[in-house]
Amino acid sequence: MARLICDISISLDGFVAGPNPSLEKPLGEGGDLLHEWAFAASSWRESHGLEGGEKNADSDVIEESLRATGAVVMGRKMFSGGEGPWESDPRADGWWGDEPPFHVPVFVLTHHSRETKVMEGGTSFAFVTDGIEAALEQARAAAADKDVALAGGASVVQQYLKAGLLDELQIHLAPVLLGDGVSLFDRLGVDAVRLEAARVIASPSVTHLRLQVPGGAGNS
Amino acid sequence: MARLICDISISLDGFVAGPNPSLEKPLGEGGDLLHEWAFAASSWRESHGLEGGEKNADSDVIEESLRATGAVVMGRKMFSGGEGPWESDPRADGWWGDEPPFHVPVFVLTHHSRETKVMEGGTSFAFVTDGIEAALEQARAAAADKDVALAGGASVVQQYLKAGLLDELQIHLAPVLLGDGVSLFDRLGVDAVRLEAARVIASPSVTHLRLQVPGGAGNS
Repeated sequence: MARLICDISISLDGFVAGPNPSLEKPLGEGGDLLHEWAFAASSWRESHGLEGGEKNADSDVIEESLRATGAVVMGRKMFSGGEGPWESDPRADGWWGDEPPFHVPVFVLTHHSRETKVMEGGTSFAFVTDGIEAALEQARAAAADKDVALAGGASVVQQYLKAGLLDELQIHLAPVLLGDGVSLFDRLGVDAVRLEAARVIASPSVTHLRLQVPGGAGNS
Repeated sequence: MARLICDISISLDGFVAGPNPSLEKPLGEGGDLLHEWAFAASSWRESHGLEGGEKNADSDVIEESLRATGAVVMGRKMFSGGEGPWESDPRADGWWGDEPPFHVPVFVLTHHSRETKVMEGGTSFAFVTDGIEAALEQARAAAADKDVALAGGASVVQQYLKAGLLDELQIHLAPVLLGDGVSLFDRLGVDAVRLEAARVIASPSVTHLRLQVPGGAGNS
């Protein structure tokens, strides 16, 4: 069964975005600092249709994840930044233009149903209104023998983690303090749990920690 | 000038102690999981008057810090778990018995003045009532050409960090989710700041990240 993997950049103080996000600054104040290592990587740039960038340990980590991913699950807020009916959402086709950087089927959790939207470059956006388990089931079917990537945002990651559905967490820890913002784990309220550190790769700009979550449905 | 260094174990969700701390469980529920790597290390055990333990990358990191430390600063709550007048504090001489594991002068931040208490094995406890800068100044004088270690708790670390007095943060990141507890950084409310990742050492049980804080007084 396809494993569910959350690959996410966080600050030392645990934020996935800075304070005061806006349409102009969707990652909030300072939030770009979490992703500078990715913006500089050749593999990230290639997936976004950009040239150049560095080939290094960081770009290898991204390339590895891109290759392993057969489908993506994300929350509505991460998809468009909006809420409510699609007709009034200025980014109803997402943040990423005509050729989004996913290149696989993406399943968007929403309360507002809508037909699947096929984009260029292999990305399609399907809209799932019957919950996180249904979205995961559809993504697993689409991913076949590859992984399902849980793209975020934080509240969606927390929901999958608390439901015991997450198999692996790959944290990209940026040496940055944001001071405030959207907390990845916040206060989950779960009992203490030890994860298994499967791999740590450190570069000057980020530390990649791959962690297996015990009891994850695909970790059998 | 002696540098101020905070060497501290945290969970993936950013806690230095779990929820519901008590005199019996000062680190709260699950809090011991943050320190298992240290409890198992020969250097930690030796500093606590215990035999055995493992000699490995983790014990080397602890030994390095112990050797570099000439004085310690800590908060009253970390020192005794109590508050208010010393006469009514059941742990008025600290948690650690007659021979505490510090073996250097320790400066305790408190609102309640008291004479310095000399313990066995080179540890003394001095009680500083005139604030974090005064405590640091006294600790620097005592440390001479060594570092001053900021032992905690979280609110004291936050105070030094916000005051721009911290030179280095060495985070020991345990692959554990505590779900709730005492957050090291919480929402500091500072502007985004990038630290310099000076060194990362990963073992199966913990990842040690050494981070330089720009503008720290001793980082000149």
